[in-house]
Amino acid sequence: MSQFATIPSNTAPYADLPPTNVQLFEAKARKGLSFEAIAAKLEKDEVWVAAAFYGQAKFTLAELSTLASLLDIPTESLTGGLGEHWWPNRGLGPSPPTDPVVYRLYEGVLVYGHSIKAIIHEKFGDGIMSMVDCKINVTRKADPKGDRVLLTFDGKFMPFPRW
Amino acid sequence: MSQFATIPSNTAPYADLPPTNVQLFEAKARKGLSFEAIAAKLEKDEVWVAAAFYGQAKFTLAELSTLASLLDIPTESLTGGLGEHWWPNRGLGPSPPTDPVVYRLYEGVLVYGHSIKAIIHEKFGDGIMSMVDCKINVTRKADPKGDRVLLTFDGKFMPFPRW
Amino acid sequence: MSQFATIPSNTAPYADLPPTNVQLFEAKARKGLSFEAIAAKLEKDEVWVAAAFYGQAKFTLAELSTLASLLDIPTESLTGGLGEHWWPNRGLGPSPPTDPVVYRLYEGVLVYGHSIKAIIHEKFGDGIMSMVDCKINVTRKADPKGDRVLLTFDGKFMPFPRW
Amino acid sequence: MSQFATIPSNTAPYADLPPTNVQLFEAKARKGLSFEAIAAKLEKDEVWVAAAFYGQAKFTLAELSTLASLLDIPTESLTGGLGEHWWPNRGLGPSPPTDPVVYRLYEGVLVYGHSIKAIIHEKFGDGIMSMVDCKINVTRKADPKGDRVLLTFDGKFMPFPRW
Amino acid sequence: MSQFATIPSNTAPYADLPPTNVQLFEAKARKGLSFEAIAAKLEKDEVWVAAAFYGQAKFTLAELSTLASLLDIPTESLTGGLGEHWWPNRGLGPSPPTDPVVYRLYEGVLVYGHSIKAIIHEKFGDGIMSMVDCKINVTRKADPKGDRVLLTFDGKFMPFPRW
Amino acid sequence: MSQFATIPSNTAPYADLPPTNVQLFEAKARKGLSFEAIAAKLEKDEVWVAAAFYGQAKFTLAELSTLASLLDIPTESLTGGLGEHWWPNRGLGPSPPTDPVVYRLYEGVLVYGHSIKAIIHEKFGDGIMSMVDCKINVTRKADPKGDRVLLTFDGKFMPFPRW
Amino acid sequence: MSQFATIPSNTAPYADLPPTNVQLFEAKARKGLSFEAIAAKLEKDEVWVAAAFYGQAKFTLAELSTLASLLDIPTESLTGGLGEHWWPNRGLGPSPPTDPVVYRLYEGVLVYGHSIKAIIHEKFGDGIMSMVDCKINVTRKADPKGDRVLLTFDGKFMPFPRW
Amino acid sequence: MSQFATIPSNTAPYADLPPTNVQLFEAKARKGLSFEAIAAKLEKDEVWVAAAFYGQAKFTLAELSTLASLLDIPTESLTGGLGEHWWPNRGLGPSPPTDPVVYRLYEGVLVYGHSIKAIIHEKFGDGIMSMVDCKINVTRKADPKGDRVLLTFDGKFMPFPRW
Amino acid sequence: MSQFATIPSNTAPYADLPPTNVQLFEAKARKGLSFEAIAAKLEKDEVWVAAAFYGQAKFTLAELSTLASLLDIPTESLTGGLGEHWWPNRGLGPSPPTDPVVYRLYEGVLVYGHSIKAIIHEKFGDGIMSMVDCKINVTRKADPKGDRVLLTFDGKFMPFPRW
Amino acid sequence: MSQFATIPSNTAPYADLPPTNVQLFEAKARKGLSFEAIAAKLEKDEVWVAAAFYGQAKFTLAELSTLASLLDIPTESLTGGLGEHWWPNRGLGPSPPTDPVVYRLYEGVLVYGHSIKAIIHEKFGDGIMSMVDCKINVTRKADPKGDRVLLTFDGKFMPFPRW
Repeated sequence: MSQFATIPSNTAPYADLPPTNVQLFEAKARKGLSFEAIAAKLEKDEVWVAAAFYGQAKFTLAELSTLASLLDIPTESLTGGLGEHWWPNRGLGPSPPTDPVVYRLYEGVLVYGHSIKAIIHEKFGDGIMSMVDCKINVTRKADPKGDRVLLTFDGKFMPFPRW
Repeated sequence: MSQFATIPSNTAPYADLPPTNVQLFEAKARKGLSFEAIAAKLEKDEVWVAAAFYGQAKFTLAELSTLASLLDIPTESLTGGLGEHWWPNRGLGPSPPTDPVVYRLYEGVLVYGHSIKAIIHEKFGDGIMSMVDCKINVTRKADPKGDRVLLTFDGKFMPFPRW
Repeated sequence: MSQFATIPSNTAPYADLPPTNVQLFEAKARKGLSFEAIAAKLEKDEVWVAAAFYGQAKFTLAELSTLASLLDIPTESLTGGLGEHWWPNRGLGPSPPTDPVVYRLYEGVLVYGHSIKAIIHEKFGDGIMSMVDCKINVTRKADPKGDRVLLTFDGKFMPFPRW
Repeated sequence: MSQFATIPSNTAPYADLPPTNVQLFEAKARKGLSFEAIAAKLEKDEVWVAAAFYGQAKFTLAELSTLASLLDIPTESLTGGLGEHWWPNRGLGPSPPTDPVVYRLYEGVLVYGHSIKAIIHEKFGDGIMSMVDCKINVTRKADPKGDRVLLTFDGKFMPFPRW
Repeated sequence: MSQFATIPSNTAPYADLPPTNVQLFEAKARKGLSFEAIAAKLEKDEVWVAAAFYGQAKFTLAELSTLASLLDIPTESLTGGLGEHWWPNRGLGPSPPTDPVVYRLYEGVLVYGHSIKAIIHEKFGDGIMSMVDCKINVTRKADPKGDRVLLTFDGKFMPFPRW
Repeated sequence: MSQFATIPSNTAPYADLPPTNVQLFEAKARKGLSFEAIAAKLEKDEVWVAAAFYGQAKFTLAELSTLASLLDIPTESLTGGLGEHWWPNRGLGPSPPTDPVVYRLYEGVLVYGHSIKAIIHEKFGDGIMSMVDCKINVTRKADPKGDRVLLTFDGKFMPFPRW
Repeated sequence: MSQFATIPSNTAPYADLPPTNVQLFEAKARKGLSFEAIAAKLEKDEVWVAAAFYGQAKFTLAELSTLASLLDIPTESLTGGLGEHWWPNRGLGPSPPTDPVVYRLYEGVLVYGHSIKAIIHEKFGDGIMSMVDCKINVTRKADPKGDRVLLTFDGKFMPFPRW
Repeated sequence: MSQFATIPSNTAPYADLPPTNVQLFEAKARKGLSFEAIAAKLEKDEVWVAAAFYGQAKFTLAELSTLASLLDIPTESLTGGLGEHWWPNRGLGPSPPTDPVVYRLYEGVLVYGHSIKAIIHEKFGDGIMSMVDCKINVTRKADPKGDRVLLTFDGKFMPFPRW
Repeated sequence: MSQFATIPSNTAPYADLPPTNVQLFEAKARKGLSFEAIAAKLEKDEVWVAAAFYGQAKFTLAELSTLASLLDIPTESLTGGLGEHWWPNRGLGPSPPTDPVVYRLYEGVLVYGHSIKAIIHEKFGDGIMSMVDCKINVTRKADPKGDRVLLTFDGKFMPFPRW
Repeated sequence: MSQFATIPSNTAPYADLPPTNVQLFEAKARKGLSFEAIAAKLEKDEVWVAAAFYGQAKFTLAELSTLASLLDIPTESLTGGLGEHWWPNRGLGPSPPTDPVVYRLYEGVLVYGHSIKAIIHEKFGDGIMSMVDCKINVTRKADPKGDRVLLTFDGKFMPFPRW
């Protein structure tokens, strides 16, 4: 078992999460489990599982039950806070983001947003890449000059209807 | 040859571009060329070429010269505005973005930013995915339920030094 | 009876509600009741009932009493916090909204606001659609290509007087 | 034919439109045509046509050609500015809106946003009402106590995938 | 006839007005007419007339015609810019206002807004004072200790419906 | 005696008030007293009394003592929190306001601010209507088409000195 | 006579001034006159004269006439733009200010604002120092360790009335 | 001894102060001492002492000890919170300020900032009035038309070096 | 041993730190240790150590253990809060900063940002100075006219790739 | 001689500069001169010269005359626009900055601002590093792992006086 861990629930971004989510983070830290390991148990992707930990996605009751036994938390504790009657209130952290990791993604929007829009229009016409029907992946890509992060958004194209 | 095209240089995001960039967009429209076609001529990626059209990247003098003949613009016109002495002043459009295509990317940061950060830390440790040493790709992925946009960021991991 | 439910009263939008409203949400979750069911008991519309739960509308004393017995809360607890001397302080959540569901409504204002204004002026002249004397409805509309949300605002036209 | 009309292209929201759109508004005013009349000719809805006039939707080349003859504008003038190579850059006007008509819609989001979200979740589960695949309608509804505006959003429900 | 007058149409708040409104201000200054005098001719209130000059209300065609002869402007010039096809886009100047006169009104909202709301609720119940169906008056009230401004808002009470 | 009342001291605008003010609101609710009734006892205007309850004006020690016996609060409790050493820190609630009642006042500034300024200048010259030396009144005015709110600001004119 | 001078009327803060004010600045520069010299001619204080040049105060017709002959500008040119029918629209420059000189004043408000408020209350009671009935002076005070700026605000105390 | 006093430590600006500063304010109120009286004991200026109470300046250990006996607070309590290891984190209250007293100072920056800057440049050249090496004084000046506040900033001129 | 010290954990910037970081500050104050002394023990730079205390960098487990014994804190207390499972969420304090020390750095960006950018481009071409791979140093430089702060950023140049 | 160069004077940050500054940039580009070369001629530092080009510092008349002959611009043209009567209005570009080069400096303030403040206080006591009496240097430092930017701020320490 790993060291005991205290998630600083009074500070960003944890302070903006429901207490049950903070409990999940603390149990994860106490167990020393990575999102990859938890995702494997849940048979889900790790980015999606992290999103659910951050209150940005919704576990099923079955998943909450799996989590409860994996993380040694009473099931009712999880289903009480994140069960049927809870819906994610999405959006987390300040904007513009101040953390350099999150800011770099934001900078991608500032610098390449209109270029990506232009290419989407040229390849698909008038419409958007959905951020709802979208899957996100983060992979480590080995590189002799320094490993690279491969971040992929796989989102459904939604044409603007003409009515 | 395609229809004549007027780029609305008084409106966003064109109003924020140097006049030489607007000239590039007009010539591109007049010639009826896609970024893909231009990128092929320049032996570059289409997102990068679009970025350079939007003033977010810098062409070499050789590329400006290729563009000049491809788009029927006098070379000096391009080198005068975008040559040695011009440097991109990056960042384009309002924030938060109002256009739905660009907003969805921004929403990706709001909703999944902290999850992506968490996975990067678990896979790489304390550091960032560089948005400077980063290549971006947009691909059309066929799907019977509706084609999908595959958007990839391939950025160097930069560890925070400890000094 | 449904699972026990904890409404995360330290997080948005619950953190901005009077404690009596949070109590209502918890009782509703504990009872496993939908807004539709509660609205039927109160002989009101479900959007209006949800609005009152979110502190955006005001129940009568009679309604509070009905709620109290429906939700197993002491009547005085409800009338003490939401009775005669309490008035809604309307407006809930950040702007621009970060939650995708709420943001889409906001995007409707950004993208179609001026068009809706133009059509209102053409059909009614100089004036507004009241958002005070306005009834709102959400219906599920079956559709083979995917069900649709039918969201209706039925607001009184208020002409600008000329004085 | 109606009185001559000057659209104040230096003021909001016209100042943010491409010049071809301002030209459309001027021709519409000069011809004294309502959006309803133009929409009938184009066999489209009037809100959608207004949106396209405001640069928030994209006409086909055929529609531009119909408009050109209806409004006595040279076709090339319209296709040059709003043709194949132009894509809407959506979002118009300040936020929060200052105009009372547009503000009331925004107030609808502030006051009823979370209630609408709650009802959507209860009726559909975790997902959004699309504002891209969405049709909007404005109708005048007679009422002895003062006519009412019936504003309808008919948008596809998009479930959040779990991946 | 008064001195010639130039309205600084590049500066606030004139820069945000349609050119026809600036023309009205210039003619008013050239003629040396007060809003009181113009209002008397139009048989309207002076605050309303000032509002219409500032693009915040809409003259009828008959009023535009009266104004045209009163101010020596060709009628078509006024009807072309402010006629049937023009609708006020209301809201003028920055917020918070920087001008001390306008700021004091804003300070009234900051300091007394909730008190006024409380008294309205105690006298009328749950509802608002309409700012659409509202007449505004400014009177000079003599006072030996220094004359006073009497500013009156006379607005219809609009109850929140319960539906 | 009226029902027991809990003022939601964790929510706007009460959360921004000193605890003694919240105590005043609770006692007022418990006693079932209107501002009109309290103002009559204090021989003050009701808007001013409401302002003092909201921490926007300062009671004298004598008034605090009258309030204490009227509301059954120990005098020291009031004089300890709102006595000699306390000064109002004015300004309450967010800006722009989100509550429709308060927003309408703010909209009055946005829409009519410059018109009111113009009329003040025409009637008084260069100066302001003081919001410090200003009395505010809210009256119910009967009207067969729906009663109206008469809101009056009676403020001293302050000329800009020329020095 | 001094060197010819061009005031950059497209840049802050000149871009926000009426053209007549820019003309004043250019004539002042061309004549090589300080505000002190101009103020002496007008028998006014130099800060007030500077304020009037920046459009923050209003010259009388007699003063405009004195200025016209002092600065070699046609009188009508000044009276046309800044005469009877023009009223200052006060407030100049961005907030927070970016210029270090103006920012230091703003920092004085941030750091010492509440302390100054406390001392005013202790010396005068509940009220404000008027910024309308206020005279401002800037003096150079010799000091062996480096000369000092003596900036004085001499403003009328305005008590909050109790009504 | 004066009445007992409770400083509302949950409200602005006290909520932004370290608890030791709130303790100072409470003791000051309990003792019924003015800043003038405390400043006399400390042989300092009253604005500076007020600033230190508001956490905007730093007392020496000797001053904390004098304060401790003057205000009947244990010395360690003051040195523990405001001693060697504490440094002021300056800046207090919202911007723009909402309190009328503080706002008037801010309005001074908005209205006269550029004029003061211009006079400083004319008298001193390119540089600033330091707000760090600056002493501030508030004096009551008798005036038959109403007493006046004399507020003085005495700050070192700092020339911009040319390097 | 130094005086006891209470870090005001409810105020900026401490309120934004995890509780373990506040514990570190309190122990440091209690021990009377400077960052220089702590840095010497950890064989790190003092700016980096300060950054880690402020939650802007990450200690290793070995460093936490050294700190624990140096500061007399139980090791598990530090490793529990700042151990393996904690990652810095960087960015501290408001922007623009209100504290004069931090504001001056910000003013450096406002005033010299574009100049520094221009020189970087002239010396290195198109790219940035990394703020991730960057070491910062603060040195005291004696100077007869007043000692000076020497602040150095030593950051890797990152060229924009062309892809 | 280098290629002809057009500085995009309608775009950031050039659009915010006086026209004479844009003229300087164009002449510099036309001559193909670096800031280093110009600085050598003027016997100044290159960052300072760049700052003066960007309107953030003030050339002497002698320097303007040197520049005029170096850049082949008529002397009067420079002295007319940037001579005795022009004073820098400092601060350039949006905040937060969007350009990655300028943003990284801003990120330095966000991430390390409080740490730098802490070290300054430990080494100097209560005071600031002046950004007015401050010299800035950018040097290229060779490094086998990639050259580095050495950016130095050398600013006078200014203690807060105690008065």
